[in-house]
Amino acid sequence: MVGMSGAYGGHSNGGESRAPKEAVVVRAPKEAVIVGAPPPGPPEMEMAGVVHKVAAQPAQSTASKMKGKVKETFFPDDPFRSFKGQPLRAQWVMAARYLFPVLEWLPGYSLSLFKSDLVAGLTIASLAIPQGISYAKLANLPPIIGLYSSFVPPLVYAVLGSSRDLAVGPVSIASLIMGSMLRQAVSPSAEPMLFLQLAFTSTFFAGLVQASLGILRLGFIIDFLSKATLVGFMAGAAIIVSLQQLKALLGIVHFTTQMGIVPVMASVFQHTNEWSWQTILMGACFLALLLAARHVSIRWPRFFWISACAPLASVIVSTLLVFLFKAQNHGISIIGSLKCGLNRPSWDKLLFDPTYLGLTMKTGLVTGIISLTEGVAVGRTFASLKDYQVDGNKEMMAIGLMNIVGSCTSCYVTTGAFSRSAVNHNAGCKTAMSNVVMALTVMVTLLFLMPLFVYTPNVVLGAIIIAAVIGLIDLPAAYNIWKMDKMDFLVCLCAFAGVIFISVQEGLAIVGISIFRVLMQITRPRMMIQGNIKGTDIYRNLHQYKEAQRVPGFLILTVEAPINFANTNYLNERTKRWIEDESSSGNKQNELRVVILDLSAVPTIDTSGIAFLIDLKKSTEKHGLELVLVNPTGEVMEKIQRANDAHNHFRPDSLYLTTGEAIASLSGFAKMATP
Amino acid sequence: MVGMSGAYGGHSNGGESRAPKEAVVVRAPKEAVIVGAPPPGPPEMEMAGVVHKVAAQPAQSTASKMKGKVKETFFPDDPFRSFKGQPLRAQWVMAARYLFPVLEWLPGYSLSLFKSDLVAGLTIASLAIPQGISYAKLANLPPIIGLYSSFVPPLVYAVLGSSRDLAVGPVSIASLIMGSMLRQAVSPSAEPMLFLQLAFTSTFFAGLVQASLGILRLGFIIDFLSKATLVGFMAGAAIIVSLQQLKALLGIVHFTTQMGIVPVMASVFQHTNEWSWQTILMGACFLALLLAARHVSIRWPRFFWISACAPLASVIVSTLLVFLFKAQNHGISIIGSLKCGLNRPSWDKLLFDPTYLGLTMKTGLVTGIISLTEGVAVGRTFASLKDYQVDGNKEMMAIGLMNIVGSCTSCYVTTGAFSRSAVNHNAGCKTAMSNVVMALTVMVTLLFLMPLFVYTPNVVLGAIIIAAVIGLIDLPAAYNIWKMDKMDFLVCLCAFAGVIFISVQEGLAIVGISIFRVLMQITRPRMMIQGNIKGTDIYRNLHQYKEAQRVPGFLILTVEAPINFANTNYLNERTKRWIEDESSSGNKQNELRVVILDLSAVPTIDTSGIAFLIDLKKSTEKHGLELVLVNPTGEVMEKIQRANDAHNHFRPDSLYLTTGEAIASLSGFAKMATP
Repeated sequence: MVGMSGAYGGHSNGGESRAPKEAVVVRAPKEAVIVGAPPPGPPEMEMAGVVHKVAAQPAQSTASKMKGKVKETFFPDDPFRSFKGQPLRAQWVMAARYLFPVLEWLPGYSLSLFKSDLVAGLTIASLAIPQGISYAKLANLPPIIGLYSSFVPPLVYAVLGSSRDLAVGPVSIASLIMGSMLRQAVSPSAEPMLFLQLAFTSTFFAGLVQASLGILRLGFIIDFLSKATLVGFMAGAAIIVSLQQLKALLGIVHFTTQMGIVPVMASVFQHTNEWSWQTILMGACFLALLLAARHVSIRWPRFFWISACAPLASVIVSTLLVFLFKAQNHGISIIGSLKCGLNRPSWDKLLFDPTYLGLTMKTGLVTGIISLTEGVAVGRTFASLKDYQVDGNKEMMAIGLMNIVGSCTSCYVTTGAFSRSAVNHNAGCKTAMSNVVMALTVMVTLLFLMPLFVYTPNVVLGAIIIAAVIGLIDLPAAYNIWKMDKMDFLVCLCAFAGVIFISVQEGLAIVGISIFRVLMQITRPRMMIQGNIKGTDIYRNLHQYKEAQRVPGFLILTVEAPINFANTNYLNERTKRWIEDESSSGNKQNELRVVILDLSAVPTIDTSGIAFLIDLKKSTEKHGLELVLVNPTGEVMEKIQRANDAHNHFRPDSLYLTTGEAIASLSGFAKMATP
Repeated sequence: MVGMSGAYGGHSNGGESRAPKEAVVVRAPKEAVIVGAPPPGPPEMEMAGVVHKVAAQPAQSTASKMKGKVKETFFPDDPFRSFKGQPLRAQWVMAARYLFPVLEWLPGYSLSLFKSDLVAGLTIASLAIPQGISYAKLANLPPIIGLYSSFVPPLVYAVLGSSRDLAVGPVSIASLIMGSMLRQAVSPSAEPMLFLQLAFTSTFFAGLVQASLGILRLGFIIDFLSKATLVGFMAGAAIIVSLQQLKALLGIVHFTTQMGIVPVMASVFQHTNEWSWQTILMGACFLALLLAARHVSIRWPRFFWISACAPLASVIVSTLLVFLFKAQNHGISIIGSLKCGLNRPSWDKLLFDPTYLGLTMKTGLVTGIISLTEGVAVGRTFASLKDYQVDGNKEMMAIGLMNIVGSCTSCYVTTGAFSRSAVNHNAGCKTAMSNVVMALTVMVTLLFLMPLFVYTPNVVLGAIIIAAVIGLIDLPAAYNIWKMDKMDFLVCLCAFAGVIFISVQEGLAIVGISIFRVLMQITRPRMMIQGNIKGTDIYRNLHQYKEAQRVPGFLILTVEAPINFANTNYLNERTKRWIEDESSSGNKQNELRVVILDLSAVPTIDTSGIAFLIDLKKSTEKHGLELVLVNPTGEVMEKIQRANDAHNHFRPDSLYLTTGEAIASLSGFAKMATP
């Protein structure tokens, strides 16, 4: 080993005095090199002659670093930055506006804005009323709960919410999940009151989860639901929801309480004797009508109001038909009488009994996260279209508070629904006032129009649900994912299959696959050999750039991942194998002398990573090679320095700012000029 | 928006013809630019005048890409690469050597090698015999099982194992975990036979898990146990093990069966009446002796044999003392009679009864993973010291098979023990033959010397265990972690506290914290503003390099992480805030015009990431800014191209190879020369 280190001493390079390894390295200060006469060589090599020092991050105490990290983690949007340097009074006004966004737009609210909001509000109300009734039935709740849920929550959101386009109310998937999770413990037909209590309690917990995520600034947790997972999950859930509607569409009385595709289809074909042709005919007609309306609105966006009004029109027409032909006596089931009146307080119905506490908390957690994901995604989508900002954590607090208030006023889980928000946006809403208009319209319905729904047939509600959820099956998005990334598509497919064949709530667990995939990318990071692009100082991946050429005597490696415990073993084996291959293949002239490890793309390193670098340094020395590190980023440089404090593994002469400078300095310019 | 795009059209730059955005971009081929007269400017700008195209990865089918990924994931060490191009017969020989590493060294084995191995083998045998008895007691098993486990497994390992230094046998932590997990279901004193059956069955499953990980090439799973977790876990386990020895050291008869620090300490002080001064005196003396021997060996490594032989010497001396003074009648508990004879077959004792199947599988999984981690880590450590390679997956198969065979021959979980392997290494072992020597020594003991252990006092076994596990508390490593990385230290502390206060097996779950930390690094990736280092073409992080200067009119951002679903929301908000800050602060002259996103450090991108880039492109266009991407790596470039197939978001003129070229091309050389 001692004999080997002399191998480098012989290469004297023009610009630099490079002492043999054992001696202390004397390096001229940077300025001196610039001033000094440049060595002879082609002009583009002049730059490479200057050797820049790798700077460390400015010194910072652990506490201030922690503070910085905590800030980036929990306050990435820096919500209080506009508060700085303002007088106290202005700060109070800003804080009030932050907490109640209504204060931002209400003072400047005008009649012309109200005209737009009125039209939008009435349009979404015509959608919200039939959907509210339908979704409540999907959750096995009395239909009126769906209308209650379209009255109070929109009012709360109008005060607290920062999105201008979100139309608030019950949504299909959260309804489905809540219904199916609670039904595992309690039968909605045998114990309707208990079931209702559990639904309110779950809503309370859902709101608590949502508000806590917002207050604790943990909103990033929903980011872990990747788009691929969501596309698969939504499509699967839409199919499950549609299958459930076969009960209403075929007029089956004895239907399975399970959700999977297998038991549902079995149930459908076991009860063919219960199929009612009148129901099937009516269902098919209205479903065709609704789907046609949907198609028209997608094709010609300015006719958006056709699909927006179709559900209400269907309800009205079908109710009239039933009423005129006394169809309820011919096998068509109807909603039945509904009581007039506004939401009654329900805080006394919240049930914190230990028997059901686990169930309601779990249901609240799952429905809370799912509805939050939908609400925040919808808010962000429309904010991006109109180019304004929505604060994710703020939205979570608004949605959470809305559900907590809802659980005390006979509402179940609500959030911003995609379909209704799209209609709201297309109808030209300007502010959250459209939600207020919708809520007031629902209020009028609750107070005076409830008797009109007595003859509304259930089959139409089923058709409305199918027409609504069909939009959740996003085939173009799935195709796009397939085209972009096969692994993402696999995740999407897994989520879809999980929902269809296992269960809706467990299909969500597929999120684990996405995370595992990310971990695998770290465990097996890309490591590349770089080459020089001829006539330049640029070094790039040999595999990608065919014009890049190997530099004789050098092995230039890049790592493109944080170096940490999960990949140090891999990196160690991989690097050693490369060095081994390289050493055995090279002939005498091109013999490998220097291994350059480009750390530009290594954002962080941990204790195991530093141990890997030190181990690599030692093992290359054993093989008579030199290891130099190029461009360590701030954090990595800091840890290298700390490792140096103990043992001087990485002296300044083994750290370079660019690969070009490292090669120029280590090989001498003359050699470079005639490769 | 249409008006804004004209803003760039005006900047004509010398070397390039740059058409306005709406027109088709005509770009001169690269060679023509080189040949053409360079624009006037300082010499170092010449290079920047050449604009290189960003190359895409060479086209590859999905199947071949998948194959590459699978290969890197499961065969990162490419174990069969030496097979290539060999004749069939040589391949068979190599395969046999791969499966049975004994074939590699046995043919060339010599007498001089055997001399070294003999000394090493006898030394580790003197350590293995007392430790085997002690660790079996730690697992609540009959002491003789510990000796059985030091006989068969070393022989199996000698044939299958590729490490030359590993000394195989029972280890403290796996013994502790197996004992405590099985004791939750079955009492070892009430149902000793059932307990023994469960231990063998768990060993069988541990072996199965280990061998499967090796065969399925899933060895990287143990890499997720980070060093910080292990340091904390080991230290916690060592303390728990030591506390358990208080029973033997104080002579307490009625001791708790729990493991936590609180119940153990409570149990110790509730039974002060059972304390036996004779036992305490004897324990204290031998413990002091053993610790002194350990200290001497650490201080002067050449006296390693002192600590290696101290346990056996203690056993002999203490046994003699008890025998001579009839100390068993004075409150000192002894092992009692042990039957002579070798391991009896135990495959008929494996119990696959459904009642206990879950328990034994779980115990097998936990002890299997833990002992595997220890064994592989020890193997790698010594391989690195002697500079030979240990194949992780191959080692797992060897250790797994050793345990499967062990479970059929009355052995419980074994692996490579750190303390014994260190002694083996220091004693100068050359091959796995030292394991054979140890096994034969244990065999002689089992056949003839068992009656000698009748009077061995349990208190000495307790002292031996404490002296052995005290080495697992690695304070220097913990201090090093503290110095290098405070977050790593927190993980270490959590693992320690988890083991001490919750339970040993659940302390392992702390591994989740390490993984969460890695995920958080991805969720909040570092994003930096870069500046130009004056007089060069180098662009670096402004925060780290004080000499770097902002380029007026440009915002150069780098992302240092894969861009995926977990961070696109963050990146989106963060980037927009930066652009907003920049646009509002700049005066007319330095007005922001171009945003450069340097993708050098982005190894992968997923569908959400591409959506983020497209969204950013659109939103910068809305603000009248231009977005260019610099140096996308192969995979990223490929996906950008695929996104381009659908909508031409990123035309060739918004992709550059280096930041320098992008700035030169977009600002014109004249401007650069006089900043």
